[in-house]
Amino acid sequence: MLDDVQAHADSRGVDLDEVGIDGLQYPVLIADREGVKRETIATVKMSVALASTIKGAHLSRFVEIFHASRDQLSLVTVLSIADDLRRSMSSLSARVHLEFPYLVEKQAPVTRLRAYVAYQCAIEAESSATTPRLALRVQVPVTSVCPCSKAISDRGAHNQRGNITVYIEPTPPATDLWFDELIELAEEAASQPVYALLKRPDERHITMAAYDNPVFVEDMVRNVCVALNSWTNLIAYRVQAVNDESIHNHAAYAVTSRNMTSTGAS
Amino acid sequence: MLDDVQAHADSRGVDLDEVGIDGLQYPVLIADREGVKRETIATVKMSVALASTIKGAHLSRFVEIFHASRDQLSLVTVLSIADDLRRSMSSLSARVHLEFPYLVEKQAPVTRLRAYVAYQCAIEAESSATTPRLALRVQVPVTSVCPCSKAISDRGAHNQRGNITVYIEPTPPATDLWFDELIELAEEAASQPVYALLKRPDERHITMAAYDNPVFVEDMVRNVCVALNSWTNLIAYRVQAVNDESIHNHAAYAVTSRNMTSTGAS
Amino acid sequence: MLDDVQAHADSRGVDLDEVGIDGLQYPVLIADREGVKRETIATVKMSVALASTIKGAHLSRFVEIFHASRDQLSLVTVLSIADDLRRSMSSLSARVHLEFPYLVEKQAPVTRLRAYVAYQCAIEAESSATTPRLALRVQVPVTSVCPCSKAISDRGAHNQRGNITVYIEPTPPATDLWFDELIELAEEAASQPVYALLKRPDERHITMAAYDNPVFVEDMVRNVCVALNSWTNLIAYRVQAVNDESIHNHAAYAVTSRNMTSTGAS
Amino acid sequence: MLDDVQAHADSRGVDLDEVGIDGLQYPVLIADREGVKRETIATVKMSVALASTIKGAHLSRFVEIFHASRDQLSLVTVLSIADDLRRSMSSLSARVHLEFPYLVEKQAPVTRLRAYVAYQCAIEAESSATTPRLALRVQVPVTSVCPCSKAISDRGAHNQRGNITVYIEPTPPATDLWFDELIELAEEAASQPVYALLKRPDERHITMAAYDNPVFVEDMVRNVCVALNSWTNLIAYRVQAVNDESIHNHAAYAVTSRNMTSTGAS
Repeated sequence: MLDDVQAHADSRGVDLDEVGIDGLQYPVLIADREGVKRETIATVKMSVALASTIKGAHLSRFVEIFHASRDQLSLVTVLSIADDLRRSMSSLSARVHLEFPYLVEKQAPVTRLRAYVAYQCAIEAESSATTPRLALRVQVPVTSVCPCSKAISDRGAHNQRGNITVYIEPTPPATDLWFDELIELAEEAASQPVYALLKRPDERHITMAAYDNPVFVEDMVRNVCVALNSWTNLIAYRVQAVNDESIHNHAAYAVTSRNMTSTGAS
Repeated sequence: MLDDVQAHADSRGVDLDEVGIDGLQYPVLIADREGVKRETIATVKMSVALASTIKGAHLSRFVEIFHASRDQLSLVTVLSIADDLRRSMSSLSARVHLEFPYLVEKQAPVTRLRAYVAYQCAIEAESSATTPRLALRVQVPVTSVCPCSKAISDRGAHNQRGNITVYIEPTPPATDLWFDELIELAEEAASQPVYALLKRPDERHITMAAYDNPVFVEDMVRNVCVALNSWTNLIAYRVQAVNDESIHNHAAYAVTSRNMTSTGAS
Repeated sequence: MLDDVQAHADSRGVDLDEVGIDGLQYPVLIADREGVKRETIATVKMSVALASTIKGAHLSRFVEIFHASRDQLSLVTVLSIADDLRRSMSSLSARVHLEFPYLVEKQAPVTRLRAYVAYQCAIEAESSATTPRLALRVQVPVTSVCPCSKAISDRGAHNQRGNITVYIEPTPPATDLWFDELIELAEEAASQPVYALLKRPDERHITMAAYDNPVFVEDMVRNVCVALNSWTNLIAYRVQAVNDESIHNHAAYAVTSRNMTSTGAS
Repeated sequence: MLDDVQAHADSRGVDLDEVGIDGLQYPVLIADREGVKRETIATVKMSVALASTIKGAHLSRFVEIFHASRDQLSLVTVLSIADDLRRSMSSLSARVHLEFPYLVEKQAPVTRLRAYVAYQCAIEAESSATTPRLALRVQVPVTSVCPCSKAISDRGAHNQRGNITVYIEPTPPATDLWFDELIELAEEAASQPVYALLKRPDERHITMAAYDNPVFVEDMVRNVCVALNSWTNLIAYRVQAVNDESIHNHAAYAVTSRNMTSTGAS
């Protein structure tokens, strides 16, 4: 019988918030808005809280539990993986975090040609003795035209690729929520969306539409917040916009978060 | 006169927690434990809170203020940069975050040969109407030997490079604190430190000393916590250990945080 | 009619080796050794040579051509995408480069439990007026135990995660080649493979088997080369091994390449 | 006496092109155009060729040799480090590769305010029985305005941050060459340079100057090539431009290389 070193006692008196694995690349099937299962490859992070009296956590169980559920992932099932993990490890809490590219077939604005754009998305679930916690995150690449550059120049305006990150904590089980909605909301907050395939008539349309709709990082964050403020199923959100400034070698960014359960903005 | 677009009014009613710049690579002089100024290159992130009534922040001022102070950085001066920023922008709060390689000339354990090891370090400062906030972070590469692998095997034991990240919030102004102390504390929590230059007698020493001192990620975090628990100048800490597991293609990690001002562990 | 700026004449007299797109993340179906199509997500780079007399290449055509073929990728079809691209752009040469995670369900050595390991793989194809060129690349994470550390120490031996990269140029069309074979060959060249899921009996087995089979980066490269030297369908290869040294904060590496069509090693 | 495992004989008959270390972060002093030593932090890669009859290379010597020279680096001294390495290891060839941020204090175009911009630079040296080989590489962030978008749109034009990479192999010892010249040459090939600090009059100037000077990636590469073609001290060059397209989520790129010793473009 091989010694179970992890199960030994520990006398240092230090509780650990999270013990687990990170960076596990795994094939998964994730249900989309229409319930269709889509294959993608997730980077997985899973952990449990570890009581001060126990030396270590059995990390191989994390992979076993995840492997068994990998073909039926959704907000609901990721939360139940966290529940399984917590029970299996007799732990006070357990967390599961998935990050993966989510592919959307988009149509060019004028020619209507189709091609895929990849959005980096994440699902987080935490199981504990009290209320479970769920979170979604999506990172949306966009175009932004600088309002200052446009206003002070006789012609042109600097613009660049930006990224809007929207993180929301919905009230579980949140069965009606999906990434597509958050992506659309972020794209509407920018000067224009980005695409994988554009012909000249599309490029002309986007160039002028973006020039007519200049936004700072501040504006993109506020536009998303105004939209999210009308959602009734949120506990909290955090919105960030980052511009890879085309006239600088650094980024401009804005970020804000709000706890919807408290009386005002946090 | 060029239009000051950032100074326009905004009616969306959304306060922003942070508006600023990120990813600015800048040459800086940082005072070490002995007060000697060392040249390094920092990645700088600076921000202010923006009131809901104002359209944008003037980001060029951030670079001007930082440029003027770049040759005299320390915990004390980074906090005063945050103060300057807050006043200059008439903001409720301002944050400065620097990340940089901190070079330590280390001696091999047996031959005493000298060579540099680079530790990724960070200083954070936040200025607001209430108490200022300071934080230090250091990331320390180490060797870790797996206690389970050693216990269950007749010979050998898998080991790997790990990284211990120690983040502390000291009571300002914390003039007596420096990175070297945190680096030593993290290295003592591992199976052995890592070095840039080792000859065979050193390699023999480290191999056996590490084999005699196996630790899980859980152990490394707890060892650092036990040491930090005796520090009297801390408001909070967070300790993380990550092992780039040599028998897996994913990492094992543990993390815990503690707020020293509350009665128990957070 | 919108001006076709790319089609304008150019008078600078500079031929361009490659003009194209890079970093396009795209969902693809790749046939495996058994002919089964597997979904994965590729990072795509495509280019054509541009004659000195033409101002620019029409980059949207790259995405159109790739989109039309994305569900039937193999060594043969990637080469025909390069052919299409070359003809469509009336270019002297065209290249297609795909990089993607390739998932293999592996069994633990003792318990035979199954879990996926992701290998980063690439396919390259070049179409030109002369012979087409094909290349495959696979990056294989492994365990390596240091022979020096073992020999000079009374107990233990430092070990770490390493990565073996095998790049081969087979004689087209190479219909009988696939990644699985290169992965196995690389794993056999190391102290032991890595896995996603190992229980204690597996960990004991791997710890001792690796300790009994120590290898330097030099050994891993040479073991792969010896194996490849017997392949009759190769034009050239390049083999690299990198160890994330557990006692240093830097890597050890070895690399060599061979052109099989010349008389000796290159 | 500890066994010298690396010195053992090897019978596999495989010569290795390079055996060495990579990823060593080290503080260095690099002489600039005016001979002033500047402190920066380099990522170091060093290797030697290894004859098929020897089992391994002694990697600790690499760090010892580099450490002894770290405060006097220039094109000339990096080549002599490669010479030392080759002799010390009795090898047929040795290579040294340094990569580091090179800081330039730039003035804004109108207000003349000063701030630093970091350029990622590299020096490569190879020592062998025949002629030594030297190479410099610099990566220059720039602004680029799309000529097509400008031509087909009634207003505005999409633009973005780009990066021009210039790699040159000068005739050794190349004592009169430095990075500043390559940086200026690349910046002149783009729509406009980027800066760390710009006030509104500067932003107005750059916006309009860039709009008046649109360039594709093809144009940026060709502009650099035309300039380099007049240099008399070059053996070879390679020029690449990459645009982080603001209307796409992928990059556009162009690259070309030329061997000046052959009769035509390679």
